[in-house]
Formats: sequence, structure tokens, C-alpha cells
Amino acid sequence: MIVPVTNMTNLYGRDLITTQDWSVAEIEKALSLAFEFKANRYDHPLNNCLDRRTFFMFFYNPSVRTRQSFEAAATELGGHAQFLEPKSMRLKSSKSAGETVEDAAQVMSRYAVGIGIRILETAIDYYGQGEELLRQYAENASIPIVSMAHDKFHPFQGLADVMGYRQHAGKNLKGKKILQVWGKGALVRSWCSVQESLLINSRLGMDVTLAYPKGYDLDPEVIKMCEDNAAASDSTFEIVHDLEEGYKGADIVYSRNWMTANFYDLMAKHGEAEAKKKEIEIAAKYDDWITTKDWMKKSNNAFFTHCGPVDRNAEVTDEVCDGPRSIVYDVAEARLHVQKAVMALTMGKH
Amino acid sequence: MIVPVTNMTNLYGRDLITTQDWSVAEIEKALSLAFEFKANRYDHPLNNCLDRRTFFMFFYNPSVRTRQSFEAAATELGGHAQFLEPKSMRLKSSKSAGETVEDAAQVMSRYAVGIGIRILETAIDYYGQGEELLRQYAENASIPIVSMAHDKFHPFQGLADVMGYRQHAGKNLKGKKILQVWGKGALVRSWCSVQESLLINSRLGMDVTLAYPKGYDLDPEVIKMCEDNAAASDSTFEIVHDLEEGYKGADIVYSRNWMTANFYDLMAKHGEAEAKKKEIEIAAKYDDWITTKDWMKKSNNAFFTHCGPVDRNAEVTDEVCDGPRSIVYDVAEARLHVQKAVMALTMGKH
Amino acid sequence: MIVPVTNMTNLYGRDLITTQDWSVAEIEKALSLAFEFKANRYDHPLNNCLDRRTFFMFFYNPSVRTRQSFEAAATELGGHAQFLEPKSMRLKSSKSAGETVEDAAQVMSRYAVGIGIRILETAIDYYGQGEELLRQYAENASIPIVSMAHDKFHPFQGLADVMGYRQHAGKNLKGKKILQVWGKGALVRSWCSVQESLLINSRLGMDVTLAYPKGYDLDPEVIKMCEDNAAASDSTFEIVHDLEEGYKGADIVYSRNWMTANFYDLMAKHGEAEAKKKEIEIAAKYDDWITTKDWMKKSNNAFFTHCGPVDRNAEVTDEVCDGPRSIVYDVAEARLHVQKAVMALTMGKH
Repeated sequence: MIVPVTNMTNLYGRDLITTQDWSVAEIEKALSLAFEFKANRYDHPLNNCLDRRTFFMFFYNPSVRTRQSFEAAATELGGHAQFLEPKSMRLKSSKSAGETVEDAAQVMSRYAVGIGIRILETAIDYYGQGEELLRQYAENASIPIVSMAHDKFHPFQGLADVMGYRQHAGKNLKGKKILQVWGKGALVRSWCSVQESLLINSRLGMDVTLAYPKGYDLDPEVIKMCEDNAAASDSTFEIVHDLEEGYKGADIVYSRNWMTANFYDLMAKHGEAEAKKKEIEIAAKYDDWITTKDWMKKSNNAFFTHCGPVDRNAEVTDEVCDGPRSIVYDVAEARLHVQKAVMALTMGKH
Repeated sequence: MIVPVTNMTNLYGRDLITTQDWSVAEIEKALSLAFEFKANRYDHPLNNCLDRRTFFMFFYNPSVRTRQSFEAAATELGGHAQFLEPKSMRLKSSKSAGETVEDAAQVMSRYAVGIGIRILETAIDYYGQGEELLRQYAENASIPIVSMAHDKFHPFQGLADVMGYRQHAGKNLKGKKILQVWGKGALVRSWCSVQESLLINSRLGMDVTLAYPKGYDLDPEVIKMCEDNAAASDSTFEIVHDLEEGYKGADIVYSRNWMTANFYDLMAKHGEAEAKKKEIEIAAKYDDWITTKDWMKKSNNAFFTHCGPVDRNAEVTDEVCDGPRSIVYDVAEARLHVQKAVMALTMGKH
Repeated sequence: MIVPVTNMTNLYGRDLITTQDWSVAEIEKALSLAFEFKANRYDHPLNNCLDRRTFFMFFYNPSVRTRQSFEAAATELGGHAQFLEPKSMRLKSSKSAGETVEDAAQVMSRYAVGIGIRILETAIDYYGQGEELLRQYAENASIPIVSMAHDKFHPFQGLADVMGYRQHAGKNLKGKKILQVWGKGALVRSWCSVQESLLINSRLGMDVTLAYPKGYDLDPEVIKMCEDNAAASDSTFEIVHDLEEGYKGADIVYSRNWMTANFYDLMAKHGEAEAKKKEIEIAAKYDDWITTKDWMKKSNNAFFTHCGPVDRNAEVTDEVCDGPRSIVYDVAEARLHVQKAVMALTMGKH
């Protein structure tokens, strides 16, 4: 649902495809409500704001944590999240008869108060296609469309990350150095979490250092946005390929594996299994790209964070992940609270 | 659950396998409550009548819209609809060990307040088998059994269609001409929606014209019921094979693709893929059987309706479907309201 | 969630992996609340004790009745049970990257108030592996883990069985003879239901006779526990291979098919289909191991019970199963009540 810019102080009816689409004031409003929900899990005044309302969850790709936390979020607000796998949905395409996205979006707007969509990796043919589908739904639905992770962005993960930092590092993140570092491993992960996190961190005034082995460049359009965000918030954004430089003085360390820019092309040409195999071969060359206690010693006694699920002893050692500065479970919990907050603000009765 | 005829003024405990099983007064009671629910979506006095109750949905065949609208309906009434796919259920058959329908129906009656069943097309071996299963469940359950579409009927679609007409064409449908016309396309659709609609329309006194190319005859028993309905309601029922004659003077135009009577035999002999291929070849011969603006000009400025999902530019052109006389989204929304109404009347606490 | 023994008078936070882990007083507390819920299905004071809370159901193996009754139980308590199939969950193993059980359990503890797990037969590699997984979850979660049936035990079925006996045979089961008899059939059933039932029956002072053809020995560790239970409750526990001896004087007859101890080895060596085929061949040799009216005549006008779903005319004849002394549907209903009771006591707000 596209809401006129003049209305943007009120979040009711708004889509959330990336936090970059929201103003900093709007992001802060959502985070503030998320902290209220955390403090008052079942008795907040807004806790029944989805009373008997339906939220549709469209999982083009499966995900346990996202499904669990969204369905729990709707339940805690008095509503119900329907778990839908669109493979059972006959959508019209160039190749087959079926319903158009326009019709599906309009009809679903009659039944529900919001729609979440997850689409990435094997469900799409090229990078950017997931984003296109979300934008197409948003244009045609009269209820909010929110991303539950797609090829480009993962807005609720970005919000949850920030909620976790603030819980431990304090509300004012301005001037804190965050290292966002590529981690080895065999999971060939999508770009959505790290890109969303880079955007919101630079937006909120953190000094962001992005570190990865050469060849793991992210979307240049997103990198450009991060640079603009840093300029607007009077903070810094830099890319390094050296671990020493990355960890030095960091207040927060965020590790995550991600795929190369070639993955979708490889999948189109050779199929999923072969594409993953090739990606895993490349990743295996960077054996020291794992967050260890030794690397953490170079930091400013940093908190360790991860958007989850953690690939232990690949992205990070057990020692760090289970250590006293790890905030990974609190960040995971934060997903629930930020999802409740955004649902309440954009879809709740009022 | 079979309720004695003497009790039929009270709908509590009643099955709904086709609207033909209900009296006109009972149908009107359900439609009347559906309009109340539409006017008062979340605050009607009956809106919590399924409070903490369970409704089982058995999808032998998948369906997005039916699932979405039934699950939303139960949620809006304070209850919960469980989404079940009976492929995971070991039912006894001549070929395999398992539970009998008798036992399954009796046990489920202990857990829930109602059961919806969808069974047609690839889930059955011959036309009529879905109806038999529904009747067998109804005989053995002590809670209402309702059809969520089966090979013969689709009662909630029939009710939603009428709700849509009344919203736009006025409450009194007596004497209005409705054209129910076959449409081309590659979806090889079941007979249930069109047969249910023919029955309820003729029941409520509309003048029904059924139009289709030769070879697309529907169930002769249902046609006989329509003729009897028309006689009883002092209206007309006619079958034509000419589009000009069909559209002429129509107040409402209802288009829909459906399969030939041979489909189930073809599927038994050659498998689903081959059966569909043959059906699509036959349908392709009738290129002018699509509702266009030109055909609509022959009508009495008719409303355009469709039971959804619409197969655009096959059953109807975009121009008509998106035009000012199209009521397709309101009919889709009506599914929710009539389902809430029937659930409240047959299963609600009282 | 492991709760210190000193706290065991309060059931809040307790796991339920087998009733053997609970004291008799705790079992009686759960049964007592179950009878209250039966008497007052929707208006008991605890009926909203899961208000807006989430219960995760992990079905490594599908099950219609268990899913229906657990999801209905959570709904009736004001909560919501999420239906999850862990095949879509990337758990770390020796062979593949993914999340560890430790992390999964910790994160899920942030979202929900309890987790139910069903794992047996084709989901495991050897007898005992399901139990190991449940214990591993219990060690790492901070919320209760309950078994929804696993290779060794089925605590809610055991509780439901007893609830059924008491409803018909009276509260005091001390000294009543129960025959638990193997039944023929082609379902190759797991040991969990019969083992749980043997344990709880011997615990509560019933005189238990276990009857089966030679070769159908159950887990010797469980049999040892039954003998100890009988000694502690001053009752008897015996194993016989003769039907006459088994039925003689029985107050309750419980029939059930189960697999031989070789099943998991057979499956590991020859695959599921071949293992089942071999089991079915062996079972076919014991044609008179079916509960008939003639056998029942040898009993003390016994009630007939079965943990369901019944494999009619294999485990029991229709005549007995539908006869006046059959309590099979009440036992099935009892599943709902005991599940509500345990969820309320271990997970409910307080």
C-alpha cells in the first residue's frame, strides 16, 4: 500500500521493504515501541491491537526462525499469522495460466491486515527479482506489504540488530565503530541481512567498517546508499580487505557469510547444487576469515553479534559465540519485539 | 451431523454440502448475517462466537483463496482453523491398513466444532466420489461438515456470488436475468462453482441462462434440480449454445471455464497431465467464448461477476474485469462474510 | 528445561518426556485438572492461561490425531500452537552445516512457552535416538520440552489411557487387572504407546499382564522399570505368551500392534519399505492375536480400550470396538484434556 509522503508521520498502512524507505524518526518510533514490548511482553496497551485480525505470511523460501518469530508476534498481538507457501498458488506467468499478482494482492487485501513475503535464493532467477515482486505487491495491495527477507533487504533483521546493540552498548550509537565482516562457511548466504544492517547502521550514525576478501563485493547501489547515509549522519563508511584493520578499535563485531555476486548466474547456468558447490570451493580459500578470540582482542572489548542462525566454527568460534560479550540470543529475541512493533504501528487497529 | 428435519429452523449443528440442502429461509438467514458481518467486521455481537474453538480444514486439494478466507473467518470469530492435508492421514482403504472414516469422524468430533473438506479433481477417481466422502463424514460426525468445494458443489461460493449481486443489483433478484457462460482457458476447472451457482440462483428466483459450446454439458441431475428450482420459484431456466442469445438483456454476466464430462475418465486412463492436455486442446477451439466489452454491450448494462480466481484474457478481458460494472473483488470478499455467517450459525456457542 | 528436584511440587517449567519422570502426586495433579477441563471445557478458571502465548510443535514424523489434539489444546487455553516440520530446518550435523540444537533450543525459548517434539520410526536411525534428541533439547531450552510421541515413550497417551479407565472403571484402579495384548496387523507400530501405558499402569497400582507372541519383546529397560513400579505400588506385573491366560479375569483389555526389536536394524540395512514388508510377514503368522467377542468372554466383563487410531479387524473386531464396553472414543477425547492440563501446569501464566 503506497501512502502519500505527507502522511508519513503516521505509520498506519505503510509498507516496510527496507528501513531505507522509512525516515530516521519512523525507525526510532518502531524501535522505541519494540523496547516497550520487551519490557511488557503480554500486558502492553497495544498488545491486543491485532485482535482477531489476519496477517498472511508468504514463504517462497522456507525459514524456521522468521516463521516462528512472525507467527509468535501476530499471536502476541491477539491476531493470527497464516503460514502460506505460494508454490500451491497458481499465479499467471508467461508460461502458465493462473491469477495475476494484481488480483491476488487486491483479494488478499479484503481478508487480512498485512502481508509478509520472503523470497530469495532458489525462488528467484536473478538478483533483484524478489525486490520487484515485493514492490509489485505493494503497488496493488491496499494493506501493508512487509519483507520477511528478500534478495536485497531484510528490514526486521536490521531493526533487531540495532535493538540488540542498544540493549548492551547503550542507546546512543553515534560514533561507535561496527565491523561487519565476511565469515567463511558452507551456507552460501544471501546478501539481505548484511545489506540491511549496513544501511541502518550508517543511517543511525555508526562508523561502519565493511571487511571482506576481494571478490565478495555487495550490491554497488546499496554501497552508494551507505556512503550517502554516512555523509548525512556525519559518520564514516569504509570498505577494507584486511582483518587487522577491520577489528582494530571496533565496539561491535558482526560476522556473516555471504555469497559472491556470481551466485544467481551460476544457478541459472548450472543449477542450484553446482552453484553452491562452486561457491563453497571459493569460500574455502579464506580460512582465517572467522571471528576468534584472538581477533576480538584487537577490538575495543567489542560485543559480538550475528543475525543468526550462527554457523559455529565457520563464521565464529564457540569461544566467542558463547563468551560474555556475545549478544546473539538477545538479537534473536529482538526479532520478535521489532516485528510486533512494526505490525502494531502499520497494521494495528486504531 | 444429520439433524432431524423438525429442527431445521435452528441451524446449529447443520451440515452444508450444498445450498440445495437448506431451505430458502435458511439461506436467507445466512446471507442476512453475512451482510451484518460486512457492516460490522470486528464488533458484531456474534464476533467471538467461536471463542477458543477449533475448526478443522481438510484440503485433499490445495486452494489459496479458500484456505485464506476460511482461516481468516475462524480467526475473526475468535476461533482457530487448523490447516490439514489428509495425505498425511492413514485412512483404511481396500488397499491399505489405516483408520476408517467412521473412527476419524467420531474422534474429530471430540476435538472441534466443525470440519471443512475440499476434495475434487486429482484427489478423486471419478465424478461424485468427493460428494460421497462428504456425505460419509456427515453421517458419522456429531459436528457440522461443510464443503470447501468438492467435485459437485461449492456452497460458500454460491452464497458469496449472491451476496455480491445483492450488494450491487439490490436485494430483490427476482426476475433478473443472469447469464452463466462458459469461458475458454487452460485451467480445466471443476464443475462445483458453476453448478452451485446455478442451483442457488434458480432457487432465489433469478432467470438463469446457461450458455456453453456443445460438449460442455454439466451434471444432468443438477440441471434437473435447476429446472425444478425454477418451477418452484416461478422463474426461468434455459440452456443455450449461442452467445448472442445468452448476453441479450442480461442483468448479470457470470463467466467461468469448466472441464468436459470426460475429464475424470481421461485422467483414469491417461493420467492427469495427458487429461489436461486433451481438455486444453478442446477448449482452444472456442476462441470467441470470452467476455468482452462488445459482448457486454448486448446486455442490460450488466454487472460482471466471476467466482475467482479470474483467468484474465481467457474467461474475460482486462477491460471488462477492471471496468466500472465489475464486482469480482466484492464477490471475493463476500466469501469471508458468508463463511463467518454459516460458521456462526452452525457451530457458534449459543 | 531442567528444574531442581526440590521444586518438584510446582510443575511450572517442567519437561514431560515420560510420566516415569514425574512423581505419582504430580501425575495425579495433571489427571485431576484434566477431569476439571473435561467437566468445564471452555469456562474453567485456567482456560485462558496460555493467552497469546506460543507453543511450538515439531513433527519429525506426521501424525493427524496428535497434531489435531495439541493444536486444539493450545487454542482452548487461549494460546496458539505452531505446526513446524523440522525437515525445513537446517540443523548442524556431522554431514552438513547448519544450526546446533543448543542454539535452536535457546532461541526458541525466547519466542515460546513450550516445545512439543514427535520423533520416531523413519525419522531416526536407531531405537533410542529420539529420546536422546528430546533430552538434548530439554538440557538446552529454558522452557518445557514435552514428548508428542517418540521411539520410547508417549506420556500424553499414557495419561489419556488412565483418564479413560477412570471415567468408566472408577477412580480407584488399584488391584484392577489390565491385559495389554499385542494385536496383529500391517501397521508396524512403534513401542512408545504401549511402553508408556505399561509404566503408568504399574505405577498407579494396576495388576498388569503383558501378552504377546514370542519374538515381540519390548525394551528390557522399560520392562525392568515396570517390575520396579509394581513392587513399589504393591501390585503385579507379568508377561505371558498365552491368550487364555491373558484374558482371564481382566477388568480392562488394551490391544495394540507393535514392531519387533529388529525393525530399526532392518530399516538401516534394507530401507523402510523392505523392513515393513518383513515385519508384516512375521505379524501375519499370529492370526488369532485379535481381540474378539469370544476372547472378551474370558474376561471379567472388561472394558475394551485402544490408544488409537484403531486398526479394525486386525487389532480388534468391529463387534468389540463398537460394543457397549468399548471406551476408545473417550480415550481419544482424553488426549485433549490431559494435554490442556499439562500445558496449563507446566507453561501457563501464573
